[in-house]
Amino acid sequence: MNVTIHGRTQHFRTVSFDAKSNSVRLIEQRLLPHEFKIVATRDFKETAVAIRDMVVRGAGAIGATAAYGLAQGALAFRGENLKKFAAHVRTVYQTLKDARPTAVDPVNAMNAVCAVMQKGKTVEEKKSLALAAAEDFANEDAHHCEEIGRYGAKLIRNGMKVLTHCNAGWLAFVDVGSATAPMYAAQAAGKKFHVFCDETRPRSQGATLTAWELAQQKVSHQIIADNAAGHFMQRGEIDLVIVGSDRTLGRTGEVTNKIGTYTKAVLAARHKIPFYVAIPLSTIDWNLKRGFDIPIEERSESEVLGAWGIANTTHKRAYVRVANPVSGARNPGFDVTPPELITGIITPAGIFKPRDLWKHRARLGSNAVGK
Amino acid sequence: MNVTIHGRTQHFRTVSFDAKSNSVRLIEQRLLPHEFKIVATRDFKETAVAIRDMVVRGAGAIGATAAYGLAQGALAFRGENLKKFAAHVRTVYQTLKDARPTAVDPVNAMNAVCAVMQKGKTVEEKKSLALAAAEDFANEDAHHCEEIGRYGAKLIRNGMKVLTHCNAGWLAFVDVGSATAPMYAAQAAGKKFHVFCDETRPRSQGATLTAWELAQQKVSHQIIADNAAGHFMQRGEIDLVIVGSDRTLGRTGEVTNKIGTYTKAVLAARHKIPFYVAIPLSTIDWNLKRGFDIPIEERSESEVLGAWGIANTTHKRAYVRVANPVSGARNPGFDVTPPELITGIITPAGIFKPRDLWKHRARLGSNAVGK
Repeated sequence: MNVTIHGRTQHFRTVSFDAKSNSVRLIEQRLLPHEFKIVATRDFKETAVAIRDMVVRGAGAIGATAAYGLAQGALAFRGENLKKFAAHVRTVYQTLKDARPTAVDPVNAMNAVCAVMQKGKTVEEKKSLALAAAEDFANEDAHHCEEIGRYGAKLIRNGMKVLTHCNAGWLAFVDVGSATAPMYAAQAAGKKFHVFCDETRPRSQGATLTAWELAQQKVSHQIIADNAAGHFMQRGEIDLVIVGSDRTLGRTGEVTNKIGTYTKAVLAARHKIPFYVAIPLSTIDWNLKRGFDIPIEERSESEVLGAWGIANTTHKRAYVRVANPVSGARNPGFDVTPPELITGIITPAGIFKPRDLWKHRARLGSNAVGK
Repeated sequence: MNVTIHGRTQHFRTVSFDAKSNSVRLIEQRLLPHEFKIVATRDFKETAVAIRDMVVRGAGAIGATAAYGLAQGALAFRGENLKKFAAHVRTVYQTLKDARPTAVDPVNAMNAVCAVMQKGKTVEEKKSLALAAAEDFANEDAHHCEEIGRYGAKLIRNGMKVLTHCNAGWLAFVDVGSATAPMYAAQAAGKKFHVFCDETRPRSQGATLTAWELAQQKVSHQIIADNAAGHFMQRGEIDLVIVGSDRTLGRTGEVTNKIGTYTKAVLAARHKIPFYVAIPLSTIDWNLKRGFDIPIEERSESEVLGAWGIANTTHKRAYVRVANPVSGARNPGFDVTPPELITGIITPAGIFKPRDLWKHRARLGSNAVGK
């Protein structure tokens, strides 16, 4: 998407590859929204560290980073010996996998690259196939988001006020994003609308990343406290809700997403406001049978007890402890929204009722078809 | 309530009067939870500044502060001339009233003191009546909160997990508090329970003031992001909700309280969790006919865009800008919860269904009786 730096607007992807220097180029997301910087990793080990340390985050974005990282590792190999090359690639694969051990996207992305590499007969062929496959993976991620935008844009009418939660934007993917895709597509179609970004405590990805994205694309928006959405719905100031999903159960239509998503869905249902979830196909889990079985990660208490930002005293990045010094916190990272609260799931293959995902599993690329 | 300083536990009221030095003693609430300090205002002008600058906040607490401030001003008068004394008292009254022009509590409190002063025949008599009336006002505020506790404690059973929002604690009153009163009474009765404090963005009074109060009284508690309550309710981890109210409509049972209260009520109703509102009688508005007519104050954007706390870099109080630098915010301070979402209103005169307040208006001290 577009980023304006010193008055000059350029197009960036969250993740891209520079073949000349054999480096993966990433938007350094930990500095946003206060600083925009591209980092280039010089080898696959640096790429793994960037995944581990959350320079890059978001399902699609870390998938593409791992795919590029695998190609980067393969391309750095010197020699023609196929066995040595294979051993080297295994090391690269494991290093990138270990960077975020519970994430499924890097593994799926690297498996896709490996499958293509199989077809190469020489080291050189395998190298160039690896890079082509990584590029394909990244392009497909961006293309899928564009398709989400194409379907979802129809939901946004002129004058609407749209609520979103957390960041399911282009920073979480290679480009375009999931929940933001309909907004960018509606904007491109000339529609005028306004977005309310939930700040999304405790990590404030709405106030930081989503607000930054929307500001860069010149989409009209305002940040609200997570507490305020109910009030605005009650006063008729929200017409549509679009959020993303970290894991969607293909069998039940339940959606796991950032903590607070469930609350917004309950409020939207009470006020008869359409509540949509935008997802790439890779987040559909076709195996799990109950949302209650999804493990909910409890994150660090410090996220709830304070906040990160730029201090007014030093003009530097600082963490402030907000809460009572001796009090502790609970910090579940995600919650589960049941299908009856979801108007529709926006996918690259169309919009579906959450309970109809299973019926359309062939079209949605289920691995579980026939099981 | 109790406060432990350097290992020594003492009893404090939020507001008290020191007759020897003719000063109003206030807990400096702007420093909490990071520092506990009592400030003593030397004259009524300093008392007015303390109200204006929110050294003291909360309906009952600013009412008592104004009552004491009026007595403090009266006591400082030198001479026996009744006319000059009356003129002086008018100045004191106006100064204290102007400190928080939209608040009704200081005015009601000072009117009560003035009514008692009328009975005095000399300046000396009027002075001592003023102080006695101010003390009565403060004692009555504390007593009413104790009565809320007496009725509300029955709702808290052993092993319960109780959610509260914002700070309707003793810091908002002279002592005991409204939403916290049932908790303190249940604790005194030997019951074991756990409190979840919503952090209550954007001003975080739950994470700061309520958590501080509960920690001082040794009530088991944890802070949660406002986004997390729905998840905990869904998992059966919340048994009861008790919140306060800034204004309760006696005719409809609607409750205006800190932004986010409505959301918690909607969630509680979905999960069939009892949702109670604890109120002193002074917050009942017997005149307004529709909650929609309650003006909702929009506060400064900076509250939503950042946070106050102790910086990890300087160990000093600082504001951090969290949000994207060029993005704006909406910041409604309150919301309105309809009566169908409220299980009961806990008052010093008993627990009532919200729609029954009007029926019991005589008992609840309505000025509008017979209108």
